[in-house]
Amino acid sequence: LKLKTSSLLIAGALFGAAVLPAQANNEAMMDLLKVLRDQGTITAENYELLTNAAKADKESADATEAKVEKVAKKADDATIVSLKGGHLKVKSGDGDFSAQIGGRVMADYAVIDDDRDLDGNGSEIRRARIFLKGKAFNDWGYKAQVDFASDEVTIKDMFIAYNGFENLQLTLGNHKISNGLEANTSSKYITFMERSTIDDVFSVGRKNGLSLATGGDNWSFKTGLHMDGIDNDNNDKDEDYGYGARATFAPINDKTRLIHLGVSAHHQEFEDNFSNGAYSQQRFRARPEIHMINTRPYDTRIDGVEDSNTYGLEAAAVYGPFSAQAEYFKKDVNTDTSDVDFNGWYVYGSYFLTGESRPYKAKHGVFSRVKPKSVVGQGGMGAWELAVRYSDIDLYDGSGPAVNTLGEEGDVTTLGVNWYATSNIRLMANYVMSTVEYKGTAKSDDDIDAFQVRGQIDF
Amino acid sequence: LKLKTSSLLIAGALFGAAVLPAQANNEAMMDLLKVLRDQGTITAENYELLTNAAKADKESADATEAKVEKVAKKADDATIVSLKGGHLKVKSGDGDFSAQIGGRVMADYAVIDDDRDLDGNGSEIRRARIFLKGKAFNDWGYKAQVDFASDEVTIKDMFIAYNGFENLQLTLGNHKISNGLEANTSSKYITFMERSTIDDVFSVGRKNGLSLATGGDNWSFKTGLHMDGIDNDNNDKDEDYGYGARATFAPINDKTRLIHLGVSAHHQEFEDNFSNGAYSQQRFRARPEIHMINTRPYDTRIDGVEDSNTYGLEAAAVYGPFSAQAEYFKKDVNTDTSDVDFNGWYVYGSYFLTGESRPYKAKHGVFSRVKPKSVVGQGGMGAWELAVRYSDIDLYDGSGPAVNTLGEEGDVTTLGVNWYATSNIRLMANYVMSTVEYKGTAKSDDDIDAFQVRGQIDF
Amino acid sequence: LKLKTSSLLIAGALFGAAVLPAQANNEAMMDLLKVLRDQGTITAENYELLTNAAKADKESADATEAKVEKVAKKADDATIVSLKGGHLKVKSGDGDFSAQIGGRVMADYAVIDDDRDLDGNGSEIRRARIFLKGKAFNDWGYKAQVDFASDEVTIKDMFIAYNGFENLQLTLGNHKISNGLEANTSSKYITFMERSTIDDVFSVGRKNGLSLATGGDNWSFKTGLHMDGIDNDNNDKDEDYGYGARATFAPINDKTRLIHLGVSAHHQEFEDNFSNGAYSQQRFRARPEIHMINTRPYDTRIDGVEDSNTYGLEAAAVYGPFSAQAEYFKKDVNTDTSDVDFNGWYVYGSYFLTGESRPYKAKHGVFSRVKPKSVVGQGGMGAWELAVRYSDIDLYDGSGPAVNTLGEEGDVTTLGVNWYATSNIRLMANYVMSTVEYKGTAKSDDDIDAFQVRGQIDF
Repeated sequence: LKLKTSSLLIAGALFGAAVLPAQANNEAMMDLLKVLRDQGTITAENYELLTNAAKADKESADATEAKVEKVAKKADDATIVSLKGGHLKVKSGDGDFSAQIGGRVMADYAVIDDDRDLDGNGSEIRRARIFLKGKAFNDWGYKAQVDFASDEVTIKDMFIAYNGFENLQLTLGNHKISNGLEANTSSKYITFMERSTIDDVFSVGRKNGLSLATGGDNWSFKTGLHMDGIDNDNNDKDEDYGYGARATFAPINDKTRLIHLGVSAHHQEFEDNFSNGAYSQQRFRARPEIHMINTRPYDTRIDGVEDSNTYGLEAAAVYGPFSAQAEYFKKDVNTDTSDVDFNGWYVYGSYFLTGESRPYKAKHGVFSRVKPKSVVGQGGMGAWELAVRYSDIDLYDGSGPAVNTLGEEGDVTTLGVNWYATSNIRLMANYVMSTVEYKGTAKSDDDIDAFQVRGQIDF
Repeated sequence: LKLKTSSLLIAGALFGAAVLPAQANNEAMMDLLKVLRDQGTITAENYELLTNAAKADKESADATEAKVEKVAKKADDATIVSLKGGHLKVKSGDGDFSAQIGGRVMADYAVIDDDRDLDGNGSEIRRARIFLKGKAFNDWGYKAQVDFASDEVTIKDMFIAYNGFENLQLTLGNHKISNGLEANTSSKYITFMERSTIDDVFSVGRKNGLSLATGGDNWSFKTGLHMDGIDNDNNDKDEDYGYGARATFAPINDKTRLIHLGVSAHHQEFEDNFSNGAYSQQRFRARPEIHMINTRPYDTRIDGVEDSNTYGLEAAAVYGPFSAQAEYFKKDVNTDTSDVDFNGWYVYGSYFLTGESRPYKAKHGVFSRVKPKSVVGQGGMGAWELAVRYSDIDLYDGSGPAVNTLGEEGDVTTLGVNWYATSNIRLMANYVMSTVEYKGTAKSDDDIDAFQVRGQIDF
Repeated sequence: LKLKTSSLLIAGALFGAAVLPAQANNEAMMDLLKVLRDQGTITAENYELLTNAAKADKESADATEAKVEKVAKKADDATIVSLKGGHLKVKSGDGDFSAQIGGRVMADYAVIDDDRDLDGNGSEIRRARIFLKGKAFNDWGYKAQVDFASDEVTIKDMFIAYNGFENLQLTLGNHKISNGLEANTSSKYITFMERSTIDDVFSVGRKNGLSLATGGDNWSFKTGLHMDGIDNDNNDKDEDYGYGARATFAPINDKTRLIHLGVSAHHQEFEDNFSNGAYSQQRFRARPEIHMINTRPYDTRIDGVEDSNTYGLEAAAVYGPFSAQAEYFKKDVNTDTSDVDFNGWYVYGSYFLTGESRPYKAKHGVFSRVKPKSVVGQGGMGAWELAVRYSDIDLYDGSGPAVNTLGEEGDVTTLGVNWYATSNIRLMANYVMSTVEYKGTAKSDDDIDAFQVRGQIDF
């Protein structure tokens, strides 16, 4: 009786089955046949035949086993396609490559009551975007996003990124080199239909340039140098350029509680403005949180603008379903004769009736996607949010070379209700009450009010 | 001999194998070893060793079995990617999410003989579209489709849909709120290269608004309220709006036989037209089923237009390879002084030489994709269709405030041949003979004839 | 003892296991039980029970086996999604269908020193493209590619292809019907940031028409007939049309060594130019390999142009990391009074410091994608290439009806460095020195120099 080799195998199989490569087995039969032959229960001839049968059984089982291994490997190596949350994402088996295809649709409808008699009821597709983005060769990334609103092409993101340095992202091309909290938060996630009035004048938005971004569990830092935009529209002049930085810090940052603080600074050169040895007029314009109005009521024109400096302060807090957010901006506009100061600020609060908390991404110092606790379409009712904002803008300091043809100063109060049916679909309703003051001119103040609603999806 | 437990297992395995969770088994060996030990054929020591070997065999087989289960589950849960028919579709394992990416290309070439001397031979990319559409969280849908023909952006579909109510689709955004059979049938599936002349003036097309659609095995109903388009281009005026409904009924509807009947009504307000206390001129223009002509020969201009009402009748029939289709439209244009009536109709027939039948979707009351019985590229010859259409338009009723600078009345006869190489590729050739009459003016009639061909693919 | 049937099975299992459909087996047990029963070791009753147990074991194993087969088949039939090289490709299990979604981003920055004082420093997104392409029903193909640079839509490829004839591709729609080596090589793969000066005037580019292409291991031939472009912009005139052919031959063509020779000819009719019984002026314009300059300095205007004939010669060589390339073009412009001759040529060389060779596709007679030997992001350093080009253009022959308002003759020397970080990402730097001569006018020569860099990705 020679079961030693087999005994070792048995031990291996018993204790190591999980780690040993699985293999089809019929050791028991082989051993039994040996025992029966050795003690004469079966003849040597029968032993031979039966052993062959057992070997054939084993080969058949091994073939199945190999097929299983092959299919399992195929499944492991396969590119993974996902539609999680309604977003089409593809990822290579090794994780070095990924791709995402998506977009966003925002359909707006407004009833506008305008003292200026410049606006009526209307509708628009506010944003209609398609994008491709991805990761390539582990360290590289890209995004190509185009907006088709108003039947026009507007290149949004169009950049290459390098992530090969530890905790540092280099981005080259057209992308957000923005200087504020609201400006850096995606239009998919902003609390009101429009960013506050001050955004038009004080935030940098997307520019064609180079930026460096880094961040951690409770902080972020981004700095960039940029040209003017996506097209070289300079004539015999150099293109505008600028540079700036933004830093944020979140001393408290857990799922339902947040304190966010941020500062930013940005310098802008107006090279396009310079020709024939002189700087020409520059316009600073804004809409009062109603996008569908025809003419921007805030429109300060300044002669001889050489450059400007913009400084921003941010603060935000989340406490369970409550959140509050405020920003203050100051812009020094430097002309060839004197300087002009602008400033603006807003403050707002929001409350989720359904108990959600506004989610925050500390590494980028921005708010992100609200995920309702229950989803419409899967038996739930979505998330409901109430919000109110007050914003104030001052584009005139009573002196200097400003030429004002329209509003210079004013404020806006907005009441909002958001219904997040799912994590990627929401309906918004805003009631906007704005007052535009024409301080430097003979005009009296204007009230522009609007009730506006939006259907929004991003995919 | 205690085989009772095993016997139960055996019975279970014999009669319940299909429903019991599959499991690797070596009951026979275990039982045999017991038998041999009990009757003294093998020793207790050998029994112990052999039993261990059998258990190890079983564990090995169980590991394989588990691996199979895991891979099978992975395959079942996996997002499904399909290229069926040349259309890239992705569907989540649970069916709650889907996405489709595609587009269409139509390349046209024309030889035009124009009495007006306004047109020559030419070419154009008639349609160049890309779209993303999908389903999210089970009850929601969306589509974003943009056309790039003529190197211009035209937003086509850009909407969010809710399908959570039983047999009811709510759609918000830019989409077809159309009022006719030809208008509601996709340009991918229309029988001639262009829809009939009357489509330009009488159909509503895509608008930004809200619609409700429902339907069954042999009927459809759709109603909607809409603003003007995808951009808020109203100046100090309210934007145009309208509302309407369409109902269809198919008393006969099987694979090769169909009777389709339909009615529609639509009211349009021309708010953009109103300024300074008066309604201004409105133009009603059309092309005679030749898209590449420069100036639309039908061009009726009416002063003081306040609103219009459009009524439509539809009928269609399919009998094997034969099909026929007709529509009649009447439009009352109401001005601040008097009313003007327009009307138009067409009738056409088609015959598939290769035996196909025009497919119909009763739930939407439209014709859909022709699938050739044999496919070019897979050994077949495609489908061949002959068609003839006569259409008549009258944009002048001989009285009232109309200001006609161009054609007012006329008819078009079109002969067509379609070759459906595959279900998504077809070549079309149309010979178009049109006569434009200038009844209210001194001009004599014009003949505009064209031979035009199209290469078409949708993906 | 009746082992005969079993013996056959054993032999089959031993010698044919690989080809027989794998099946779970426990022949050895069945045989052993027979032996033990026949020689009386076990009772008939036990034999019966044990045989049932063995059969149950087998059924259980068979169920597993069937499950494996099902999953393996599912994996084999499944649509394959790949991100290889950063390109998202989808292919049906049977290979009859495929789809690819991608694009390209090129972000450019330039410092321009222009004697004309027409240009300053600037930036632009040089190319911003998205495409869908695919294969359908085995024999058919399509591509839809749109460029969004300068926030404008430009349809690039928009075509249907038929590949059902052996070694022959028919293409209908907007596509490259080009007549040169540089012109036919994708902008993703050209050695310098811009094609040579002569490309603007002598190459055909993308046109809306029909082409036939064929080729082999060391040759290619393409011929086409085309209309003007993607839009029918002819007024009362016929649209421009043209036809031409290109043939290439590569007597040496292996991985690291190449000799490429090519010829092309193209005829262009200027129908749009004809109105009121006369041909009007036609402009031939070019940029000196700097795209961001405002006004094209080469601008020859000729009255009464009826048609033109363009002839081209191409030669290229690769020897390991070295490559050289040259083209010569001659264009006869025929007017209603006399003829004018243009000509231009360039020659360039490049060297890969990192040892790569420029890859070539003989079947299309073009250069293709450089794949670095080591990749940044996967532990490598990418590929580094140095290059120099000299190009010369002459758009004035000193006589005839030419009306020259700007440069007529000139040359450009470009020094280039390319860093291929990965196969789909490269950074380019070009120093361009150009001289524009105004021979026929009183103007003195202009120097336009530029240092320009590009970040490029295609996906």
